[in-house]
Amino acid sequence: MDSFIMKLIAVSNEPGMISFATGLPDKRLFDTEGLARAAASVFNDKDLAKDALQYSTIKGILPLRKKIAARCGKEMNFNVSEENIFITNGSQECFDLLGKMFLDKGDGMAVDDPGYLGALQSFSLYGPEFIGVPMSEGGPDAAILKDVVKMHPKLYYSIPNHQNPSGFSYSEDKRKEVAEILSSSDCIMVEDDAYGELGYDGRIGPPVRSMCSNVILTGSFSKTISPGMRIGWMIVPDEMVDITMKCIESSSLHANSFSQNVMDRFLNDIDLDAYLRPIRHEYKRKRDIMLDLLDDHLPPELEWNRPDGGMFIWLRMKEGSDAMRLYESALRRKLVVMPGRPFHINGGENTIRLNFATAGEEEIKEGVMRLAKAYRDLF
Amino acid sequence: MDSFIMKLIAVSNEPGMISFATGLPDKRLFDTEGLARAAASVFNDKDLAKDALQYSTIKGILPLRKKIAARCGKEMNFNVSEENIFITNGSQECFDLLGKMFLDKGDGMAVDDPGYLGALQSFSLYGPEFIGVPMSEGGPDAAILKDVVKMHPKLYYSIPNHQNPSGFSYSEDKRKEVAEILSSSDCIMVEDDAYGELGYDGRIGPPVRSMCSNVILTGSFSKTISPGMRIGWMIVPDEMVDITMKCIESSSLHANSFSQNVMDRFLNDIDLDAYLRPIRHEYKRKRDIMLDLLDDHLPPELEWNRPDGGMFIWLRMKEGSDAMRLYESALRRKLVVMPGRPFHINGGENTIRLNFATAGEEEIKEGVMRLAKAYRDLF
Repeated sequence: MDSFIMKLIAVSNEPGMISFATGLPDKRLFDTEGLARAAASVFNDKDLAKDALQYSTIKGILPLRKKIAARCGKEMNFNVSEENIFITNGSQECFDLLGKMFLDKGDGMAVDDPGYLGALQSFSLYGPEFIGVPMSEGGPDAAILKDVVKMHPKLYYSIPNHQNPSGFSYSEDKRKEVAEILSSSDCIMVEDDAYGELGYDGRIGPPVRSMCSNVILTGSFSKTISPGMRIGWMIVPDEMVDITMKCIESSSLHANSFSQNVMDRFLNDIDLDAYLRPIRHEYKRKRDIMLDLLDDHLPPELEWNRPDGGMFIWLRMKEGSDAMRLYESALRRKLVVMPGRPFHINGGENTIRLNFATAGEEEIKEGVMRLAKAYRDLF
Repeated sequence: MDSFIMKLIAVSNEPGMISFATGLPDKRLFDTEGLARAAASVFNDKDLAKDALQYSTIKGILPLRKKIAARCGKEMNFNVSEENIFITNGSQECFDLLGKMFLDKGDGMAVDDPGYLGALQSFSLYGPEFIGVPMSEGGPDAAILKDVVKMHPKLYYSIPNHQNPSGFSYSEDKRKEVAEILSSSDCIMVEDDAYGELGYDGRIGPPVRSMCSNVILTGSFSKTISPGMRIGWMIVPDEMVDITMKCIESSSLHANSFSQNVMDRFLNDIDLDAYLRPIRHEYKRKRDIMLDLLDDHLPPELEWNRPDGGMFIWLRMKEGSDAMRLYESALRRKLVVMPGRPFHINGGENTIRLNFATAGEEEIKEGVMRLAKAYRDLF
């Protein structure tokens, strides 16, 4: 599996190759000028600059944690103290920290099936037994989740908004249903909100965290502002604050305080909602370009969804088909797509993830044409 | 222990308090103007800026790894490919990664005694049994190390240059002796070089890594350029490259590429040796101020060393004394010092770590006077 993904990354860099395979945001949308001003403003304030370059607090800098807390109140239907918010090296570090805190070898852990591969890899280092909860448009299968929590999994990892890999989201009802199931269980949900701010018409629903207390919510600026600055966070219940402090201190002392200060200044300078508007619009526009082309050029036996946010479309071939054959055929046409099997606990051989966010408009157009040809080559 | 250190941090921030207790470098020495120029230069190069803000490679950016490899060749007596160098979120992340790779519960692990607390805390999350190797001026006790490696510890963690907490360094002969002991063992040394560049008259000796292959060398810009940028690295043998990639990807995807690019530009702009000269000079000057005052004001039954680099002096009371009493007495005089016991596997009740790097000249003077008075208060 690892070597497969390495190969995939390597081929993506070959000249003439178009890639729908990665999970990268569109770097054209990064506000380099705004961030340059923010960085200059940190350096222009000599005292702030010295502090930004010095060791900092384990939890992360206070003004940034306050902004995240305020955003939870304004956009996410719940109030939280900044004392429960920890800044991390991207939300990826959250998964590692949570694995360290919760998982021993053989522990049960419920996960979206399909689910986000990077998180599964992170948790897997702690040796849990993954239990897949089937994920489809509208959210996880609640009947199965109800049975699964009876097996006392330590954690349930899920992405309710514009999921990676599928683009699926929880319906409003499903959010409530999942909150109810969890509230009467001893399972803690890790609610990954990496894509929540990328709803094309705004946030599509309240987080499970707003309806249920045994939830750890993770977030990130990686999809909205910059992944290279590696700023994520997690929001933990009171009883986890001390252990989280200890684990962050042991793992990395604290997240990059230079990045945190630049990010904080940047957020001072912008209106986040106004900032997000053109980004949401651009991803929606690229989604539409890809969807229209898929409609026009792919045969009716292929299925796909119409995500209302995020970066991914989930392509399904007929049951029993092998998407690896389409992957290989596409590669011969110089298009890289991501087979869906690695995201799955069970099955998924017939699925493919398409990222429409990273590529430019012309690449999307040419890429879908290559995909259509690659499919026709097979049959 | 945790609550003790929390208390120590809290009291350090009280008004009027002087602290010799932390491990912070002197923020007056940070080159905020140079780093501001480096950041501006990253942003002025639009393509570079986009890449610095985007997801990056697991290993870290190539030009920075090349610079570290070149420095190894120039200053550290060994040649290494940049392919064996991994950039991390400070060297603290190295310890966590190495714990993850090497340690299972109950595994033996040899460590400096006293040793760097932050690393011990990081490793301890993986449940090893620490075996202390007594550390004194000139390096570890070689006879004991020879016996210890026969117990097949998985790792041996040590700081050969200007150690934290003691300021002790390996002698030239001890470096060779340790290399020989390790070469004929199955134990891998984690050689922490956090302070190697802070030798006041330059690097004091070649790393064990230059004489022995089963060594993982860790380094950092935290003590020389900026800890807040969280850029450390580790240099691993060929056979560890794949597993290191996998562990970094799972733990944090990659280190902050924004910081890495700013650091790389900064290193382009400076001559590192010329840059280090005033920093080494200033720490030497502050060491001398503290040493002169200790000579003048502390009674002869107290002992301390004369470090030739780094940030720490190691104070020893008479055997059988309780340094916690001096810690508490100093606190009443509004001086915070760090008791040496937490750095130890065995003993150390009579020891105290003094940091002369963080405080300004006047604070050092006043702080030593308070220490002398606090000591007299006791007897």
